[in-house]
Amino acid sequence: MGHFSTIKEEAYLANMEISKQKLAIYTFGNASSFDPDLGVYAIKPSGVPYDELSPEKMVVVDLENNIVEGELRPSSDTKTHTILYRHFEGIGGICHTHSAYAVAWAQAKRAIPIFGTTHADHLTVEVPVTEVMSDEAITRDYETETGKQILSAFESINYKEVEMVLVACHGPFSWGKDAMKAVYNSAVLEELAKMATLTLQINPAAEELKQTIRDKHYYRKHGKNAYYGQS
Amino acid sequence: MGHFSTIKEEAYLANMEISKQKLAIYTFGNASSFDPDLGVYAIKPSGVPYDELSPEKMVVVDLENNIVEGELRPSSDTKTHTILYRHFEGIGGICHTHSAYAVAWAQAKRAIPIFGTTHADHLTVEVPVTEVMSDEAITRDYETETGKQILSAFESINYKEVEMVLVACHGPFSWGKDAMKAVYNSAVLEELAKMATLTLQINPAAEELKQTIRDKHYYRKHGKNAYYGQS
Amino acid sequence: MGHFSTIKEEAYLANMEISKQKLAIYTFGNASSFDPDLGVYAIKPSGVPYDELSPEKMVVVDLENNIVEGELRPSSDTKTHTILYRHFEGIGGICHTHSAYAVAWAQAKRAIPIFGTTHADHLTVEVPVTEVMSDEAITRDYETETGKQILSAFESINYKEVEMVLVACHGPFSWGKDAMKAVYNSAVLEELAKMATLTLQINPAAEELKQTIRDKHYYRKHGKNAYYGQS
Amino acid sequence: MGHFSTIKEEAYLANMEISKQKLAIYTFGNASSFDPDLGVYAIKPSGVPYDELSPEKMVVVDLENNIVEGELRPSSDTKTHTILYRHFEGIGGICHTHSAYAVAWAQAKRAIPIFGTTHADHLTVEVPVTEVMSDEAITRDYETETGKQILSAFESINYKEVEMVLVACHGPFSWGKDAMKAVYNSAVLEELAKMATLTLQINPAAEELKQTIRDKHYYRKHGKNAYYGQS
Repeated sequence: MGHFSTIKEEAYLANMEISKQKLAIYTFGNASSFDPDLGVYAIKPSGVPYDELSPEKMVVVDLENNIVEGELRPSSDTKTHTILYRHFEGIGGICHTHSAYAVAWAQAKRAIPIFGTTHADHLTVEVPVTEVMSDEAITRDYETETGKQILSAFESINYKEVEMVLVACHGPFSWGKDAMKAVYNSAVLEELAKMATLTLQINPAAEELKQTIRDKHYYRKHGKNAYYGQS
Repeated sequence: MGHFSTIKEEAYLANMEISKQKLAIYTFGNASSFDPDLGVYAIKPSGVPYDELSPEKMVVVDLENNIVEGELRPSSDTKTHTILYRHFEGIGGICHTHSAYAVAWAQAKRAIPIFGTTHADHLTVEVPVTEVMSDEAITRDYETETGKQILSAFESINYKEVEMVLVACHGPFSWGKDAMKAVYNSAVLEELAKMATLTLQINPAAEELKQTIRDKHYYRKHGKNAYYGQS
Repeated sequence: MGHFSTIKEEAYLANMEISKQKLAIYTFGNASSFDPDLGVYAIKPSGVPYDELSPEKMVVVDLENNIVEGELRPSSDTKTHTILYRHFEGIGGICHTHSAYAVAWAQAKRAIPIFGTTHADHLTVEVPVTEVMSDEAITRDYETETGKQILSAFESINYKEVEMVLVACHGPFSWGKDAMKAVYNSAVLEELAKMATLTLQINPAAEELKQTIRDKHYYRKHGKNAYYGQS
Repeated sequence: MGHFSTIKEEAYLANMEISKQKLAIYTFGNASSFDPDLGVYAIKPSGVPYDELSPEKMVVVDLENNIVEGELRPSSDTKTHTILYRHFEGIGGICHTHSAYAVAWAQAKRAIPIFGTTHADHLTVEVPVTEVMSDEAITRDYETETGKQILSAFESINYKEVEMVLVACHGPFSWGKDAMKAVYNSAVLEELAKMATLTLQINPAAEELKQTIRDKHYYRKHGKNAYYGQS
């Protein structure tokens, strides 16, 4: 249906960007694009390599996890996307990758400290890491529970200010106003993860950035007094 | 002979994929494709750079290590491939590389711990490492003995569930239903090796993934209840 | 105006070189080119990706931070460039990136030791790191103050001999006789930062290069008795 | 002169290979090709970027360091090449790079241990590192003395079996039967340096490879009983 052509095109381009930014080998990542008016989103089909993708192959899913359009099975992480779209009102895209440095922090079960302004340009706190899922939750609906782990991590964090998270033992998820911004946030997260790893190698006692510089960098890019960029 | 055109083509494509995935510099890797009906396999010729390969240059070898077809000398690791095809019934391809992170774990003589779901998506246990070969075995038939070292490491491991191994002091071998899947497993192994290295740098006390998550991820991709991919 | 066509072209080419040398992802870096006769410089517009740049989009700014020509908002780091052009007489270009290894040293708040001749070929001392900016300075004009932090770090260092610096918690700035040389210095700095990181991993007690070799390498490339290069 | 066209072409191709194998940024590496009958070699001109090279620009030098042909100044490392050609009889090419991992070991002043078969495929001992040059030697003819440092390191090592070395605080030099083989050895050295660095990160107590495996791998590639490759 023509109704979904925009989100399918956007989801396609965002998934291709995952590959272009080298955030995943083979099929190890997925992105989706949400249409708030229709209440549906387009997502990568499961297990299909990036160079075999096309806008037509994107799968359209509603917020009850029903397939609305598409011949292929959607990403195995689909239910995680659904739960985030249901609770993070206003986001228009989600990205999940297995980029190496971000995965390493997730596997180390450590939040990524905020060591510098590259980080503060995007968020003023550490990149949060979820709790490890309980055995009881795993036996329920694993992918939905993954989404709930993320929601728990954001009980006291504003998802509009922190657009990325590490799922413990798993890897990064990110979101944003649209699908391409979500992939951008995954690329930024990988860069922050790499910089933090190197920083600790050079100085294991490195201290986090002080609050005044965090705020200065964040608010020159975000909010009504921002003066970064062209609008 | 036309009999061998399929395995020669598959072996050629798999060897080119080693180079494309940057799993080896120069000639530091080889892949083979097996035909169970004919009892022979096609393998890379020894010491020939990837960009000089063609399907015609692949060497066809039987399971007694006789050259059945081909003008060139087969890979120096040929006898290791033979022993694996003889004992790992049902596999259709083998890949051997000298990718840097996997080699480093082999040189460190450490199995790669299972720290996260990227690993559990492919196998539910650590990536095993063989024993170091005895001096007595080295003086026998070195490449055949390398294969036997791998067989020993798999006495209590199912080679259909764990399709990769580190040969101590040497490097990785992997296999699969066909040659391209074997190369895929080598690329996955390199990624797991890199992620595990980084994980330990970030958290030297990182714990292995708990069993429930291992099983969940593995069985959503493998077995009769799998729901990853398109079939 | 045709007056500015040279510096706009030079600034454009220098910014494209940042991307080509992989010194920044997305828009995380900027370069400028100065015309000492006109007292103005051309700089990258803020937040515009490298592949959307053109010479026409460069913004021309004077040393009072007034926009002299250009439709777009200049880089948010513009005032830092201004303060450097005002005080570092004779430089013709400035580059700022967020390359990962240099940022890591800046975040670790450590000067980069001079461990070898790759370093000594370019400067005979460690790469300096600024102090962390005071809260009081942050509340003033942040980007101008960033420039002043650099000036403070160079009170006892000759900016003509040391054409690079790490701004603590932030990242590298470099300069040179023209914009392309400034980008070259950023690429060299990233390489020196990487080599120093690896050196300390291999030998945490590695000692700095002795003075006689520092001088020998520097003066075979610089000064009147230089014999490196073609002039 | 047509006399030199072969070595100029070989030197050109070898220098381009340095860049292709990413063993140096900008002009940080050089290769030369020797003609034993004429007693001269062709080498990269000093400070010229790889993408501006051509066979015609190569400089022909004799073993007294006289320029025999060429409009440009030869590499600043020319005298080091000369001393090696004078003393390492039978070699046909030399390569010098500033590849990051090899430089790091040189700056750490540590020989690279032989941890595995990738290393043993090429040499059966550690990659040697020279002594640091004395102040007195530095004041003499620095580049000739660099060559002498290498000769000293090889007093008890056979340069035909170990075709690479680390000059302390500086970086790697390698040689071989021709210029392209010398560059190949530089690429192998960088890979061995990377693998050894990672091995020690994974297991700081990693032990060197036992002698029997060293010999097995080396002699399957070298000497009269070799069975690796096609000749």
